[in-house]
This record gives sequence, structure tokens and C-alpha cells, in this order.
Amino acid sequence: MIYVTRRAEFAASHYYHNPKFSAEENRRIFGKCNNPHGHGHNYAVEVTVAGEVDPATGMVMDLKELKKILEKEVLDLMDHRFLNKEVPAFATTIPTTENIAIEIWKLIAPKLRIGKLHRIRLYETPDLFVDYLGE
Amino acid sequence: MIYVTRRAEFAASHYYHNPKFSAEENRRIFGKCNNPHGHGHNYAVEVTVAGEVDPATGMVMDLKELKKILEKEVLDLMDHRFLNKEVPAFATTIPTTENIAIEIWKLIAPKLRIGKLHRIRLYETPDLFVDYLGE
Amino acid sequence: MIYVTRRAEFAASHYYHNPKFSAEENRRIFGKCNNPHGHGHNYAVEVTVAGEVDPATGMVMDLKELKKILEKEVLDLMDHRFLNKEVPAFATTIPTTENIAIEIWKLIAPKLRIGKLHRIRLYETPDLFVDYLGE
Amino acid sequence: MIYVTRRAEFAASHYYHNPKFSAEENRRIFGKCNNPHGHGHNYAVEVTVAGEVDPATGMVMDLKELKKILEKEVLDLMDHRFLNKEVPAFATTIPTTENIAIEIWKLIAPKLRIGKLHRIRLYETPDLFVDYLGE
Amino acid sequence: MIYVTRRAEFAASHYYHNPKFSAEENRRIFGKCNNPHGHGHNYAVEVTVAGEVDPATGMVMDLKELKKILEKEVLDLMDHRFLNKEVPAFATTIPTTENIAIEIWKLIAPKLRIGKLHRIRLYETPDLFVDYLGE
Amino acid sequence: MIYVTRRAEFAASHYYHNPKFSAEENRRIFGKCNNPHGHGHNYAVEVTVAGEVDPATGMVMDLKELKKILEKEVLDLMDHRFLNKEVPAFATTIPTTENIAIEIWKLIAPKLRIGKLHRIRLYETPDLFVDYLGE
Repeated sequence: MIYVTRRAEFAASHYYHNPKFSAEENRRIFGKCNNPHGHGHNYAVEVTVAGEVDPATGMVMDLKELKKILEKEVLDLMDHRFLNKEVPAFATTIPTTENIAIEIWKLIAPKLRIGKLHRIRLYETPDLFVDYLGE
Repeated sequence: MIYVTRRAEFAASHYYHNPKFSAEENRRIFGKCNNPHGHGHNYAVEVTVAGEVDPATGMVMDLKELKKILEKEVLDLMDHRFLNKEVPAFATTIPTTENIAIEIWKLIAPKLRIGKLHRIRLYETPDLFVDYLGE
Repeated sequence: MIYVTRRAEFAASHYYHNPKFSAEENRRIFGKCNNPHGHGHNYAVEVTVAGEVDPATGMVMDLKELKKILEKEVLDLMDHRFLNKEVPAFATTIPTTENIAIEIWKLIAPKLRIGKLHRIRLYETPDLFVDYLGE
Repeated sequence: MIYVTRRAEFAASHYYHNPKFSAEENRRIFGKCNNPHGHGHNYAVEVTVAGEVDPATGMVMDLKELKKILEKEVLDLMDHRFLNKEVPAFATTIPTTENIAIEIWKLIAPKLRIGKLHRIRLYETPDLFVDYLGE
Repeated sequence: MIYVTRRAEFAASHYYHNPKFSAEENRRIFGKCNNPHGHGHNYAVEVTVAGEVDPATGMVMDLKELKKILEKEVLDLMDHRFLNKEVPAFATTIPTTENIAIEIWKLIAPKLRIGKLHRIRLYETPDLFVDYLGE
Repeated sequence: MIYVTRRAEFAASHYYHNPKFSAEENRRIFGKCNNPHGHGHNYAVEVTVAGEVDPATGMVMDLKELKKILEKEVLDLMDHRFLNKEVPAFATTIPTTENIAIEIWKLIAPKLRIGKLHRIRLYETPDLFVDYLGE
């Protein structure tokens, strides 16, 4: 068993707001992130696939294919977008780093034909990131 | 003469649009950056001050003061903001990396009491940055 | 379950010395790190908290609070300090990367009100780091 | 139990080719990596050793010794080499990131006198890496 | 006047050898880099263009076009190649970091329609790079 | 003319203090850096040499020689040292980033046999650095 990770970047904007909270609660809980105009990040996503090395290729899976899945399922959807307004999953869920990582898991897991999705790591900045292992 | 540089980060969103261009021209020239909802970046700004070393302190200037100027003049204005809508300078100017760097120069230069502003470097991503030397 | 990590930096000095070793043993075992005047590093600490996403906030915990804990418990104690002489835990324990990571765990774990401390990663340099998981 | 990681870099070249595949299959499966002249990378390897902290030294193991093992077993063999032609293990195995990581595990594991080899992480580029845990 | 920089990476192999030197001289002068099988690097090139900001676009030049020039003139030629054998310019010139940077200048300068090529910076590793300003 | 840069790291501790200032002035001007026990950094120094490319070698100078000069003149003197107490130049000068960069220039400039020292860049942290060009 070996773990292969591919990293990609995308630029998106978001804001944090729960319509069930009062304006004051939203400001207190979410701070500067509550600004409804949105603000943005250069997100970096690391997708880790676990599998066995195929002796014929020396590889777990074709990484060009993993790159295509990442581009089609995640980057085409989220890159250069205002996540709250333009990504359907975030119409009702707050696009926090946690929720974006979980959403990326849901988008990629069903598309893998070889290996098993092991982990999604999402960096909002180099100093803040989350790991989701699907459970 | 020695050059002292301090780096800071801020997260903001922006989009590129010229109202004098047709919708088609805006799309062709600005591509994905033309999305009016905005998208965002973790900007990194490097402020370089040139000066002589004060023999009494061994420093060109008090960097705690430079940090305060950066925070007050730039970060308080731009961090967690949609630049087009919330920063006055970008109501009429497109907030490209070039124009943001020039604006940061204008904000910081008049506040320095010691030394001379030498360069503003602004990273939009680690792979794309501009340098402005004030002339 | 999701894992949220926040990173912070501090600058400190230290040296390695065991009073039970002879001078020659200290030099052989600890090499350049045995210099009693101390030498220093830009340490980077990554604190990982495991927990469930609160549906109301989309977050495991308020990261502004985690940052405050890190600053109050770790940075206020260790930043710009000579660890051997100024941090009580290192009066009797050698402040190796391993022992500093364990000490940071002890300082942060009891202060978390939500989630569970999962891992402390401490970088002495980008090429040398330790992970402590509390067991 | 604590995990200590040391990182080192080496520059090597390689290419991907399976003599059992047709020329067309090799090109399709391996793409640009199939070029028989080879191409190269600045590889970065992270060796993680798990162990208990020795109370007398505050360390799991002498990292100067781990560095020597890394240099003697891995860097002397692979640095500034064309892996396919000059490293015996890759005469019959394709030097993919996966296989190089597994080979490094085999080279280092038997040389550790203290602690237990926990993980080899190998970066081919900052955007592509594998983890091998020995099982 | 403002300076815009775009960075790109490519993976290539090379070796250093002057046929006018004796085998012994080649080894002494070029060390490990003299290995005729080649070794490789993840090169990073930064292309800096100087120009004035176009008030209609807020940009010196369309960076999508600069990216295309970089890909067509440099990456298509050098990425995943053994520079000595596969890039014509290095049939008679040694592909040192210096000479590669100069060659990249020659490839890009005549293709720019707007602005002026100001600098090529080429990283062989993060610890070794050259700057060429065309004169 | 081309510019070649080599980077190296060293770990040292220092503190800021001017005996002509009162205790209160030292605290106000130097802040946390005034702590007499010292604190430390992973310094990174970049040495840039300007010269012409030797057609016989394709290089400005032998970088193995530049590395040796850096190690002998700078790292042997400053690495794992308390700069104020153990480096003679800092017995009477405050080891600020500015003064350390100037001192490194003085140590390296007279040792270069080929090319001309162009710049010393010294990073105290990734967010704070100085450039000295010798004039």
C-alpha cells in the first residue's frame, strides 16, 4: 500500500454567514469573514489516493488522470468563483475550509476508478489547513 | 545605503472589468477574471525602505513602526475586502496587481518619516508578482 | 471527524547539555548544539485539533480562539526567549525539538474547550521536525 | 512515542519505460516521461523515525547519525545519477516516485539501530509526492 | 514603469563537459555534474517584463499571452528533455544555469510585442539561481 | 554580465542593546529583542556574484569555491553562535539584520578571486530581510 498525493491551486472568494444568527451574532462569531461582499484566497488542495503499485507501470494510478479529475470536478467548479453564490453546495452550507474539503471529497471519491481516496487536505493559507479522511 | 524589506499578507477579492469595453471585449481581454461576483487571493506585499544604518540602533528604521504603517494604511483598508466595491481607489481604477501595487506605494510613501520608499513588490500568487519603484 | 491545523512561528534560542555527562560526552553527543551561549531558530508550530463540524458555523472550533490559546500559552512563554534559562519546564529537561513539542502539547491540551488535540508538529528548521500525538 | 523527520534533497534523472509494452503503449501510458534520454528532478526525501525520547539526551536518536545514513545509503547512490542506468534496483523496476520511495525504505530500514522507520515521503516536485509506511 | 513577473517550472536533465578539457580536468572542474548519463532538476524560470500600465486594462500586457510565449518557446523545448542532447543550443554550449538563462532570454525577447524584457531569473534549486538582464 | 546567487542557512542567537541608552530606552526602542539572554533565528544568506560567463566552463565562477568561502568565512564564524558574545565584530556593533549583512559583505568581498560581489541578502525570517550592495 502506498499513498500518492497531487496538489493543485485555485483562487476563490467566500464569506461566512448563517441566516439563523442575528447580525450581531454573525459579526461576533465570524469576525472579518462575515463581510457579505466576500474576500478571497489562493486555496491549495492536496488529494491523496491509497493503492498498490501496479508492477507493469510502477504507479498506483495514472496521475494525468487524477489531474484531469481534479480539474474537471473541482477547479472548473470553484476556480475564480464566489463560492457562496456560484457553487450549488454552498447555497445552503457555509463555505468554511472544513466544508470545502468535505465537498471536494464528495466530488472526487466517486470518480476514482483505481485506488481509494485517502485524504483531502485543503490550505486556506499556508498557516491554516484542514484534513478530511472521509469518515 | 541598505535596503530593508518587510512582508505582510492579506486576503481580498477583486474582478477585472472596464465599462467602456463591450461584454465580449471584457470576456476576451480579462478571461476568468471578468466574473463580476469576484474571486480572491492571498496577496503578499513586500515593502522595501532604503536608508542609512543609524549607528545608535544598528537599524535603518524601527520595523515595528513600518509594520504599524503597513497595517494601518494597507491591511485595515484591503484585508478581507472586495477591492472593487470597498476600496475607494478601485471605484474608477481596475484592481489589477499592477494598480494595487501602485496604490500601496501611494498609501505608504507619505507616511515614512525615516528612509525612502524604494520598492513595492506585490504577489498575487507565488507565480505572479509585480514590482513598482515609484517612477 | 475533521482535522483543523493552525501554524504559528516563534524565535527562540536553546542549547543541549546534560549535567550528568562529562564535558567530552556533552560535546560528542550534542556537537555544535552544546555551546552554552545558545543559538537560535525560527520555530514553526502546527497545532492540529480533531472534531466534528458544527452545522451552525461550518467549523470545528473558532480558530480565533485557537490562535489566542497558542499566543497566550506558547508564544508569550517562548517567543524571543532563551528556552533553557527562561522557560521553567526546561530548567530540568533539555529543550530538544522532541521535548519542546511535548511541552507545547501539555500547555495546549487542557485549554481546548471544543474538539480534541490531535497532533503537535514542531519545525526546528524546514528540514527537521517532530510530530507528537500525545501518547 | 514521538516521530522525528529529517529532510534531504538530491538531483537525479529518470524515464519511464516498460519493455513489455509496445512503443505506442509506452507513449500513451507514460507520456512525456517516456523520453529515453531522461529528464530530471530535485527530489526531496523526508525520513520519519518513530521512537521514545531518551531522557538522558531528550532525543529519539542522534540526528547526525540519521543524516549520515541518509547520505551514505541514499544520496551517495542516487544524487546526480540517471536512476535507470546507474542504480541497480532500477535496472528491472521503473523508477517512479512510488518505486523510489519503496527502495529508499529498503535502504534505510536495516541501518537504523534505534527507533523504527515509520515513513518515507518522497517529493518529485512540490505538487507531487508519495508516502510509504512499509506495509 | 512597472515590472511584471511570471514564474513557470520545467523538469530537465543535463551534464557539464567540455571536450577540450581532459577527462581529469572535466572531473575536477565540474565534479558530480560531469556524469555523462546526466542528472536533473526542477528548474523554475521567472520572466520579468517592464512596461507602462495601460489605463484601459490596468495591465502592462496580457499575462495569458506571456504564459503562452513561455510555454511555446521554453517549456515545449526544454521540459522533460536532456538539454545537452535534445536542445540545439546546447549541442555546442554547456547547459549551465548561466547559459540556460541566456538562452531563455534569446528565445523570449523577440516574441514580446508589448513591454521590454527586463530580466530572466533561473533557479536550478531553491539555493542556486542566476539573473540575466540582457547585457 | 550575469548574476549568480548561492543561498545558505545558519542558526544563531542575538539581542539588541546599546549601552549608551538607558534601560528604559533600550526596552522602548528594541522591544522583545532587548532580552539579554538572547533569542534566535534560522538566518538565510544569499550571496550574489556578478561576472562574465567563461566560455570554457559556461560559468561565472566555480560555485563549489563560493560555497567553501561562505562556509569558511561566515558559517564557521556565525553558525550555532550567540553573535553578541562570540563574533568579534558584534562586541561593539549591534547584530541587527542590517549590521550582520554588512559584516558578511566585509568577510566575503576580499576572498573572491573571480567576479565581483554584487549583493548580500540576509533573511532574519521569511518576512524580514535586508539587501546590502556595498555602497
